[in-house]
This record gives sequence, structure tokens and C-alpha cells, in this order.
Amino acid sequence: MALTIGIDIGGTKVAAGVVDAHGLIVESLLKPTPADNPAKVAETVAEAIKELADSYEVEAVGVGAAGFIDETRSVVRFAPNLAWREEPLQRKLTEMTGLPIVVENDANAMAWGEFRFGAGRGESHLIAVTVGTGIGGGLILGGAVYRGRWGMGGELGHMQTVPGGVKCGCGNLGCWEQYASGNALVRDAQRMAAADPERAATMLKLAGGTPESIEGREITDAGRAGDPVALDAFANMADWIGQGLADLASILDPGCFILGGGVSNAADLWLDRAREAFAERLTGRGHRPVADVRLAELGASAGVVGAADLARLP
Amino acid sequence: MALTIGIDIGGTKVAAGVVDAHGLIVESLLKPTPADNPAKVAETVAEAIKELADSYEVEAVGVGAAGFIDETRSVVRFAPNLAWREEPLQRKLTEMTGLPIVVENDANAMAWGEFRFGAGRGESHLIAVTVGTGIGGGLILGGAVYRGRWGMGGELGHMQTVPGGVKCGCGNLGCWEQYASGNALVRDAQRMAAADPERAATMLKLAGGTPESIEGREITDAGRAGDPVALDAFANMADWIGQGLADLASILDPGCFILGGGVSNAADLWLDRAREAFAERLTGRGHRPVADVRLAELGASAGVVGAADLARLP
Amino acid sequence: MALTIGIDIGGTKVAAGVVDAHGLIVESLLKPTPADNPAKVAETVAEAIKELADSYEVEAVGVGAAGFIDETRSVVRFAPNLAWREEPLQRKLTEMTGLPIVVENDANAMAWGEFRFGAGRGESHLIAVTVGTGIGGGLILGGAVYRGRWGMGGELGHMQTVPGGVKCGCGNLGCWEQYASGNALVRDAQRMAAADPERAATMLKLAGGTPESIEGREITDAGRAGDPVALDAFANMADWIGQGLADLASILDPGCFILGGGVSNAADLWLDRAREAFAERLTGRGHRPVADVRLAELGASAGVVGAADLARLP
Amino acid sequence: MALTIGIDIGGTKVAAGVVDAHGLIVESLLKPTPADNPAKVAETVAEAIKELADSYEVEAVGVGAAGFIDETRSVVRFAPNLAWREEPLQRKLTEMTGLPIVVENDANAMAWGEFRFGAGRGESHLIAVTVGTGIGGGLILGGAVYRGRWGMGGELGHMQTVPGGVKCGCGNLGCWEQYASGNALVRDAQRMAAADPERAATMLKLAGGTPESIEGREITDAGRAGDPVALDAFANMADWIGQGLADLASILDPGCFILGGGVSNAADLWLDRAREAFAERLTGRGHRPVADVRLAELGASAGVVGAADLARLP
Repeated sequence: MALTIGIDIGGTKVAAGVVDAHGLIVESLLKPTPADNPAKVAETVAEAIKELADSYEVEAVGVGAAGFIDETRSVVRFAPNLAWREEPLQRKLTEMTGLPIVVENDANAMAWGEFRFGAGRGESHLIAVTVGTGIGGGLILGGAVYRGRWGMGGELGHMQTVPGGVKCGCGNLGCWEQYASGNALVRDAQRMAAADPERAATMLKLAGGTPESIEGREITDAGRAGDPVALDAFANMADWIGQGLADLASILDPGCFILGGGVSNAADLWLDRAREAFAERLTGRGHRPVADVRLAELGASAGVVGAADLARLP
Repeated sequence: MALTIGIDIGGTKVAAGVVDAHGLIVESLLKPTPADNPAKVAETVAEAIKELADSYEVEAVGVGAAGFIDETRSVVRFAPNLAWREEPLQRKLTEMTGLPIVVENDANAMAWGEFRFGAGRGESHLIAVTVGTGIGGGLILGGAVYRGRWGMGGELGHMQTVPGGVKCGCGNLGCWEQYASGNALVRDAQRMAAADPERAATMLKLAGGTPESIEGREITDAGRAGDPVALDAFANMADWIGQGLADLASILDPGCFILGGGVSNAADLWLDRAREAFAERLTGRGHRPVADVRLAELGASAGVVGAADLARLP
Repeated sequence: MALTIGIDIGGTKVAAGVVDAHGLIVESLLKPTPADNPAKVAETVAEAIKELADSYEVEAVGVGAAGFIDETRSVVRFAPNLAWREEPLQRKLTEMTGLPIVVENDANAMAWGEFRFGAGRGESHLIAVTVGTGIGGGLILGGAVYRGRWGMGGELGHMQTVPGGVKCGCGNLGCWEQYASGNALVRDAQRMAAADPERAATMLKLAGGTPESIEGREITDAGRAGDPVALDAFANMADWIGQGLADLASILDPGCFILGGGVSNAADLWLDRAREAFAERLTGRGHRPVADVRLAELGASAGVVGAADLARLP
Repeated sequence: MALTIGIDIGGTKVAAGVVDAHGLIVESLLKPTPADNPAKVAETVAEAIKELADSYEVEAVGVGAAGFIDETRSVVRFAPNLAWREEPLQRKLTEMTGLPIVVENDANAMAWGEFRFGAGRGESHLIAVTVGTGIGGGLILGGAVYRGRWGMGGELGHMQTVPGGVKCGCGNLGCWEQYASGNALVRDAQRMAAADPERAATMLKLAGGTPESIEGREITDAGRAGDPVALDAFANMADWIGQGLADLASILDPGCFILGGGVSNAADLWLDRAREAFAERLTGRGHRPVADVRLAELGASAGVVGAADLARLP
């Protein structure tokens, strides 16, 4: 039975796995990402591939990386976290491993994994949104990964949401990921706790007393304990998530949205509200079906599974 | 040589044409739209088809209409201008004419016409935006019309552009078409002329003296005569157009945009600025190609030509 | 003991009262406002004055009216609701009644009433905000009514709150009163109920089933019955109220705010949240006292009492 | 003839002057501000006072400092630039110099200087706005400095202008000074130059080639040489300045605005546009006088002259 390898290059870890045609991970391994040395990242990935390929007969390798990947799925044009510019990753890895390689945007790989084996099975048109420190996006349209003319589609986090809004790392103002992400959640919680420490007492206690030390973990724990400021911060974020989904639905009319990423671990605190906000702001509501808003099912392994499966396609 | 008929149902006129496989209109006719009597619109369309089919041997008919068309291209779910709700237009027209019928969103038909025979030839991924009183959108992705899961994709005018912004006919606040359209142009020109009649003297004179009587024609003429208020109104609109294109590019990474609609007749007054605004706000600029922003080439006949050509597809 | 008359000209009723130096209303009467006949409004006011002056010895009359009053407190420059333009109200009423007359903006009169005899006693710097269909504002600074250079200060409802926002009757976009008023409450509740009728079931039932028939009364009743959509609509409004108070505090640093107007009858549903939003957004919080946010105490009679008392000043 | 001393404590220099009753500076001196040692700042000020008081018989001293000054004009509650918290400046300086001291917010001192001897002579109600890296504000209402209930009025730069907007040093989002200041000008110019280097060629050349090295000086020089990107950056800033003035006029209805600060040195590039934007957005325009928007006349010495004159008042 045909096996392929999937790789997910993260900022801190390289995850690799041998995956079968049903999306099951037969074996996996993790290596630290040498993020301070971009030239060494490809070597680390090649080592992971070779270790796995020593034990299993694999046909091909799919590699997911955060960044702009060119339309031939070969070159990483720009990867902010890894300091890559026009990195010919496919060629390098092919030379180092002797295996067929495809390179894919990591959010696309995740979206494909969920489409084939997770929350998106059976949906031909879906939009995957990973809500972490920022936002990642993967589009599956008509049953295929949508990459755009030059491979740069799906940068959902950089729709402008607030004209003149919060400055984004991309250089623009008011990008969606400045409002609908874990970073936004922390910013709002810190600000509100500084403004009304009494109301945020639970959260501040968890964080050791100072607003600046509030992180996602404390907001989540405080929210579950009923802290009103934590709940407000989640509600703000949920409203912005819902708004962005409504914007995407007006353009792409997907059958469902799949939400993943670190913030989805606290989905009990915001998912219902995001669904409401989405439905409330959907243009043409009442005259159209409303897309499902679902949580991802594959968790952290979606990227490995999706990349491996994409390597299997012709 | 295979001929098909294309129909473009507008709010005031039904345009119909016999079109050949090269996109040339062999014969055309216009009929007034009985907009006050939605039940009669299908009859008028059928009459137009029969008149043309009497003189030419046609294989099929493509009908473009403003509104939400279902994913089977048969039923008009909701067409605000024609007061249709769940109108089974394909079935009705087939019964009345005996010809194969496909129903298509009018902006999709226009986009397809430009893709096949106009400004979009050779581009596999393009976004057509018609800027008139509102905004219409048609997506050609991977060389095919993109309709979405339920046929409702491409409602580009209803992305939220300004949170809490100007109320839109769709019920939401701050939709793109409230800022990047002819209506917005008129609203801004009237407001600025009321505030500073002296500065808007040229435009006011053309409009007969009162801000309320300023319409698109006067703004265009005044702009060409150098009226600073008219030019400011165009600049505002151009900035919002550019912003919206940048948002769409972050999601869909098209090879080009094609701008049409009534406001494009004054493109000399705003297109360069819209291009600048787009390029300036494009996320990842410097690390990616910048999509062309082009004017439509087929003018008012793009809808007829596109609908006819779509009828030819299997 | 010196008595004066206070008049409050509303859109539907003219309220008049004889008031003593302690702010007590000795006698009062109401007359319908002939709003369709602006020329008759002054006559109606004069009749009310004469009726009261027949029974009581009064020194002077204070007349509060919605609109721009000139800096000599004589002329109503512009009163949208009564169709007055440059109305010489003081002269007319003096001629008709033979009594000394001062004309005052109605929100200033209300603010003065609360300052002298209501919720603002003892505060030298206060800002009164009446939240009704729109917003009215009255400033008491350093123990005196603040009118501005030409009598037009205190138009608080027309600060721009959302750039490019909801169109205001004043011709601008995004004025505060488009977000922090009863009209905004109704707009939001209707919109949200249309989007999610199930969630708004209680409110819709109270309103007879259709979103369009929802008015303030139903939102209030539904909110008290726990309807989540009604509560969300109040929360939105409260957040905008709090934001506007924070803006005013950054400019004017008042000792307290006094909130009145029709929406304050439902203060149990939004006042606490408005206070929180204010405190959270106050610039320099932690380094300054936070102004009290209080409800008005005099209710509908504040305007009559305040106008009467202002007539007593030299 | 009575002389007083005025002091203007800036982030880099302490300016001091002996001023006569006509606002003329008889003698002046400058000392570097020991900004890294807040405890020493008062000593430096005291030395300056003593040096001047040795040669001139002075009655009193007015000290202007950036920060929140309490309502008794004695204590600096909070001065971000000098790291003062609850600094009893009046008491310290009185002890060190033996002279009567009043402490005043520096923008108030500047506003008073312009009111008494500069661009604001004869206007009873004026608003001074200093546009530098941020915004400072001073209010003269009814011929007196307006300080607010606790001395913290006039923080004009912290009105919220864009909900969810650019983060401000004060902890809030979207404050006016994030859009209508030299910092905003530089941010916009850098962003636009990065997006379209060709169009910003003049400005980039002046700045040595890279967007990051563009500062105010280069934007001004480039604007005067016709660089379109520099002119756009000034136009953006001017529009936001005009909007803020319109907001202030709706609240306070001043007779004039006086604009100063570093950015006013380039007023030829933006003042007319700011005036237009103000007039266009003024609520009730057409039914009210439009306040003058003037440049400050006293330049850098306004603070010293104003502080000295305020010391003269009882």
C-alpha cells in the first residue's frame, strides 16, 4: 500500500510522519527547527525524511511551510518566520533525498488534511482558518487546493478589517489577524484588565498580578472560571471572527468553515458566539443556506497528514 | 458553425443576441423589461429568444440575471431588482422556447465574456468587478466560472469595508459597495458641494445650482473641467476600490482584475489612483507579482456574449 | 418669593411651569405643539405663558428649545424639528407677553436643572447627555452653562465616532448619535432579530412577529425577560455611550456625567456596562480620578425647571 | 513695571525667560533637561529661575510642563516624558527659589500665550492644537484657561478617532494623535514609499534610499519638490486634522483654532486642506459661523510667554 511522507515545518519544531492512503500516521518524529540558521532548515527536513524513508518504502514527500510558495510548488518565495527568500526548497530536498517532493503552504496542507480525513469530509468547497497568534488560511474549492495565480491565495488574515486600524506585521493597517487572533485576545484582555483590575481579579490573580503578564492560558482559565473581562475579550474576538467569515462567505460561498489553531482549544468560550456573529452578518441571509462553522478534527497532525496526501496526487 | 443566444436581463432592458463561437454578435435586439410585473419578465425573455431563433439555428441559450442563482443554474433564488423569489426560470424558459437553457448570474456572464473574448484573454484567474450604482462581481478561477457551494459566490460588493459604516440595502453596515460605487461618488460629491459651494462651483453650475441635483454625469463633466471637489470625490472612490481589490488579492491572488460598469466610463478620472491604492495596500508587496488592473473591453455586450458562450459549455 | 416660568418646547408637546427659587414646580400645564405650523409655535408658547402669568406673579421666562440658539440667547438659528430658521423668538415672545424672556437650548436647560436641583448638585463641571432618538448635550463648566462662541456648543451627538459610518441627519457620516441612541438600539435589534429570529424569539413575539415592528418598548421588555438579542443590542449601545463619554472626558475632564432621555428609563439594562466601557477607555486612567456617571434625577421636568432657573440669572 | 518669569520644560531643553506685561521677553536662557534623572529636573528649573531673578526683579514664576497637572496647579500627577509621578513641583520650586510659583500644563501655557499676545488676541473662545510627534491641546474658554474638574482637560490628542485603530502610547486604540501628527505623517510616508518606490523617488532620494530612513524633514522637502507620495501623506494628515477640529467645534464652538507645533513649519503643504476638511465636516454648516483656523504666531516662545503671563494672574 502506497505510503508518503508529510512534513510540517513550524517555527520551533519540524514534524514528520509516514502516512498511508487513509490518512493514518504509521510513524512520526519531531526535530527542533534550527530557526536561527535558515540554511540548516532544509538539512533538518532532509534528515527527517531520510530517517523515515529508511524504515518505510515511500513514494513521495509533501512539505508544508508557512510562507508564500510559488505556483509550481517548488520555491518558498518569502517565509517571515524562517528568514527564507526565494528558497528553492523542492530542488534542495530532491537532491538531498532522491525522492519526489512537493512544497505546499502549511495552511493549505492543513486544509487538505481536514478536507480528506477530518471535519471537511464530503464538502467540496471549504475554507480552513487557523486562529493562533495570527491567522492562517487554506481554501479547498471544487475539491482542490486553491492556490491562486501565483501560489499566494488564501492569505485570509490580511483582509483589511478596520480602515486605519491596528498595525500589522505585513506593513498594512487593520488586517483581520490583528482582531481575530490570539494576539488580539491578549491585547484586549491586558488593556481591559489594566482599566478595571477589580473586574478582572480572577484573571489577574492567575497571571501573578500584573496586566502585562496575562497570556492566552490565563485568559482561558479565567474565562472558564467566569471572569467577566476574560469573557469580554473572547466575545470581542469571536465577533471579529464571525465578521471575517461573513466577508469570506460573500465572496466564496463555501459549504463550511473549519476553524483550527491554538485558540480553538478554548472554543467552548467563543465558538458559539462566532457562529452567531457570522450568521447575523452574512449578506443575503434568509435567501441562502448558511455554511457550517466547524472545529478542525485532526489537531496538530492535520498539516503532516495533508502534506503527505497532497504528495500522492499527480 | 454553432450559434447560441445570450440574454442579459437588466432592470430596464432585456438585451439579447445571437453569438458565434468567436464571441461575435451576429444579431441583437433590445426589449423593455416589464419590471413592475415580475411574472411577465420570463415571457419577454422567451419572446426575445423566439424572435432570434426564428432567423438563426441556435443550440442553446444562456441567460444572465442579477441575483442569487442556485448551484444547478436553474432557479433564481432572489433577485431584488426583479422581485423574483425562487423563480424556476430555466424550466419556464425551456417550456416556452423548447431550447436548452442555462441561467447565470449576470456578473458571472460578464466576467466570462471578458475572460473568453475581452480584457481577460489568457488569464486563468481573474476577478471582474462592475462598478455601477452598486458593485457586481464575477470570479473566473482556474479557467472556470466560480459559483461557490450554492451558487452564491462573487457577491463582492458585500464584504464589510467599514465596521459600523453606511447602511447597505442588504441590511448590513459598511459594505464595500457603499464606498466604491457610483452611489458613493454621488453621495460624497453632494456632501462636499454642500459644505463648500465655492470650491464646487463648476460642478454646481453644471447641476443647476443645488447639491441635491448633482448626479454622476455632472461629477464626471466637472472632474474633466478640473473641479477640485469632483476630483476629490473620484479620489475617495478610487481609494476604496483599490482597498477592496487588495483585500480580494490577499484571498484569491488573481492574475488580473477587470473593471467595468457605468463608472468605468469616467476611468480617466480615477483608474490610475485606484491602481496606486491597490498596489500600495497589497499585502506581501515586494514579495509577489502585482495583478494587472484593467478596464473591461466588451462594454455593455459582455453580458450577452458571456451568457451565450456559457450556454455552449457542456 | 420670586417665581419664574420655564418652558420646554418639544416636538409634540409644549411643557410649561411656574417654578420657585428652590426648583419646585408650583403649577404646570401642557399644550400640543403645532409642529406642522412653525409660525404658530410662538403663539402657543405665549398662550401658555399668559395662562400661568395670570395666576402667579412671575419675574421672567426661560424658554428651552431644541436647536441652535444664538449667543445672545434671543434667536433660534436653526431648529430642525420645528422648521425654524433665524426665528427671533425672544422678541416675539416679549412682544406677546410683556415679560423678560431668555431662550436657551433645551439640553442646556436640562443640564442646568440637574446641576442646580438634581443629580449634579455640588459639581462645578458636568456634562449632561440625553439619550433619546438622538443625543442632546448640555455642558456646565465652572458652574455656568457653556454655550460656545456663537451659542452652538454642546452638540455632542455630532462628534464623529465611526469614520465613514452610518449617515446622520446632519449630513455627516458616523456621528455619535447614530450609535449611542434609541434609534441605534432599534436598528441593531431589528437587524439582529432578522438575522437570527430564533435567538430573538422573545422580542419578536412581543413585537408581533416581524423584525420591522420592533421598537424601544419591545427591546426593553425583551431585555428584562432575558432575550439575548435585546441584551446584545443594549450592550452595543452601552459600549458606544461609554466610548463617547471617554472622548468627552479627554477634552473636558468633567466631575460627572448625567445621563437622561428616554433610553435612561431602561438604564438597568445598560448603565453598568456603559460605566465599564467609559472607565476602560478613559485616557490616562490610573493617573486621574474617574468621573461619576449618574442618571438624571428630575426626569421630564428638568427642562422646565432649568429654563425657569436660567431666567432668574442676571 | 511688573516682570514675571516663564519656564517651558521640554524633553530636551528647559527654556526660561523674563517677560513683561506686554508679553515681551526681556531676557531668556536655555538649559539641557536632565531627563534621565527626574529628581534633578526641579533643580535645573530652580537654577534657571535664580539666574534670571538675580538680574531682574520678578514677582512670580509660571512653569509649563507636559503632563497632567492637578487642579491646584501645584502637583504634576503624571508626566510620561520626565518620569514624574505625583511630583510636588510647586512646593519644591517655592522652597528652592522663594518665589510664588504656578505650575501649568505646557499646552495651556502655549494657548494662553497665543490668546494674550499672538494669533488669538481678541478671541474669547479658542482651542490651541500643537501638532508635533503627538498632539497637545490647550483650551481658552470665556477668556480663561480651561483646566477641567481635576486639571486634566484638554487632552485633545486622545479622543478616539478610529474605533479599533492604531495603538496609542496611552494604551487605547485609535487616538486622534495617531492620525493627525508628525508620527502619523512619517508612518504613512514610509508605508507608501515602500509600496511604490518609483512614485516616491524624490522623497526616497532625499532620505538616502530606504523607506525606513524617511523622516519629517524629507517628507517636507519632497513635498515642496512636488513628490506625490509626500503630498498624499500630508493630505491624509490634513484630513484627520480637519476631522478632529470639526469634532471639537461640535462640542465647544470656539471662535478660532490655533495650530502650532513642529508640523506647522510645513503648513504650506497641508493647512489649506485641513481648513477645507474642517469646513466640510462641521456639523450644522450653513447654519452657523465657521471658526477660523490660524497658525500660531509666537512660535517656540509661546510657552514661556504664556506661563509667565499666567503667573501674573491672581
